Amino acid sequence: MKILVPATSANLGPGFDCLGLSIGLFNSTIIEKSNFFSISIYGEGSENLSLKKNNIFVSIFNEVYERLSGKKEKFRFIFENKIPLSRGLGSSSAVIVGAIGAAFEMAGFRVEKQKILNEALKYENHPDNIAPAVLGGFVTSVVENENVFSIKKSIDENLSAVVVIPNVFISTEQSRTALPSSFNLKECVFNLAHSSFLTACFLEKKYDLLTIASKDLIHQNHRMKNLPELFEVQKFALENKALMSTLSGSGSSFFNLAYKEDANYLKQQLEKKFRNFKILVLEFDNKGFEIC
Amino acid sequence: MKILVPATSANLGPGFDCLGLSIGLFNSTIIEKSNFFSISIYGEGSENLSLKKNNIFVSIFNEVYERLSGKKEKFRFIFENKIPLSRGLGSSSAVIVGAIGAAFEMAGFRVEKQKILNEALKYENHPDNIAPAVLGGFVTSVVENENVFSIKKSIDENLSAVVVIPNVFISTEQSRTALPSSFNLKECVFNLAHSSFLTACFLEKKYDLLTIASKDLIHQNHRMKNLPELFEVQKFALENKALMSTLSGSGSSFFNLAYKEDANYLKQQLEKKFRNFKILVLEFDNKGFEIC
Repeated sequence: MKILVPATSANLGPGFDCLGLSIGLFNSTIIEKSNFFSISIYGEGSENLSLKKNNIFVSIFNEVYERLSGKKEKFRFIFENKIPLSRGLGSSSAVIVGAIGAAFEMAGFRVEKQKILNEALKYENHPDNIAPAVLGGFVTSVVENENVFSIKKSIDENLSAVVVIPNVFISTEQSRTALPSSFNLKECVFNLAHSSFLTACFLEKKYDLLTIASKDLIHQNHRMKNLPELFEVQKFALENKALMSTLSGSGSSFFNLAYKEDANYLKQQLEKKFRNFKILVLEFDNKGFEIC
Repeated sequence: MKILVPATSANLGPGFDCLGLSIGLFNSTIIEKSNFFSISIYGEGSENLSLKKNNIFVSIFNEVYERLSGKKEKFRFIFENKIPLSRGLGSSSAVIVGAIGAAFEMAGFRVEKQKILNEALKYENHPDNIAPAVLGGFVTSVVENENVFSIKKSIDENLSAVVVIPNVFISTEQSRTALPSSFNLKECVFNLAHSSFLTACFLEKKYDLLTIASKDLIHQNHRMKNLPELFEVQKFALENKALMSTLSGSGSSFFNLAYKEDANYLKQQLEKKFRNFKILVLEFDNKGFEIC
């Protein structure tokens, strides 16, 4: 069995901890029953030996598989990871969603997306990355009584993601401690208005309004102080045909959305100016995880 | 010339100061050129003499008319007001939008809705009531550089508004001072998620999810303490077929949304329990103000 799980970009500016979308950059995992446990890692994380010894995908997979099937069994895992680690592109969510989806499939259970999403919430307590990793597209979610309620919209094919990946990482925890503990009414209302309006832009496909919609007063500036070059990335991207340019999750990556015809131009301009940063032009994913 | 402007309900739970919708309860104003100024008020506000002497509609109309036409002229105004005053149903916004729309028409200017909306923002600095009063339907808006950017969606015909109007009013200012000056991250994120999700419910017509989407941690409870019976109204409405039940603007009215087939049942139940409150079953308005 092979499972593909997409990268995701959460927050999207104002939609802190609630909005996210899915990007066509996939972690692929092959799992086969085997006489002994084995693990191979290619791509992102392959150089990190601790990921072999203490692998979160394997732990979650085993836990869910045993719970579903009532059996302890041995498997061979082959990871081919394309999602960079700790860069705000949803690598942890991809691991969680992949492990749960795979466990359902291998245990012979029906892989229902809503069920996988609610299971995933047990391992990550906000839905902004796991929801698009499961469903694909742009997703707005709320959580009630440990259930995720989501509304998804596909993203048009004439749009691309231009992702800026710095050569340093910011841990989610470090990035969270950079945030103030409270916000005034003006900041709250600003983000409420923008997050709701950004949702409407994606749902009604009014992408030209994303530049206005994607502004944020709650988290980005606080987090970007950890890597001040990101302020320049954002300004420069918006001056060079990005329709929106937002910190991806808690960083360090930056997510830009542009018309497909402008994406390579934006990439080239960014590459010239930010030589230490990796720039990828990617399609959006509208399917979420897939079992092949 | 006659202008009709609808009532509006803003906030809709989580969407504080940004979301609103338009209700089919109209203030009608007839304006004619005349040799002398005269004013007649029927319906809501007719018993209040100060509204004749110091009429805000007339002041705004004259100001805008003079600015547009360069002339001071005399008019006869006949108001037939159905929107209750100071009850959180957008009576002030209806006055502003009506006065501006009428002034454009009477001065011989094209009545462009976007222009009227931006003009209205000069008199009311958040768009949650004026945007639906102008455009109709459900509206999400942001303001940038004194321009309102809005996305509107019509509300389905099989839904009704069941509006609970208490016999006391709460002024917007009084209601605003009831709010705390800051909010913690959890409260912010809760409302961000719910406001975005509620927007998606209206845009994708997933009305059954409104009960979950319409929850709020920022303003309702603080404001409802001014009239604690409203907590019972909300609970009771949700137990009696309301899909959502939210403080309308800053109160004192409560806005309930229900399927048309359930609306009269909900009205009757509310009438039995809250004998001092007026209950109206109304259609939604999807057009905004209209010049006849």
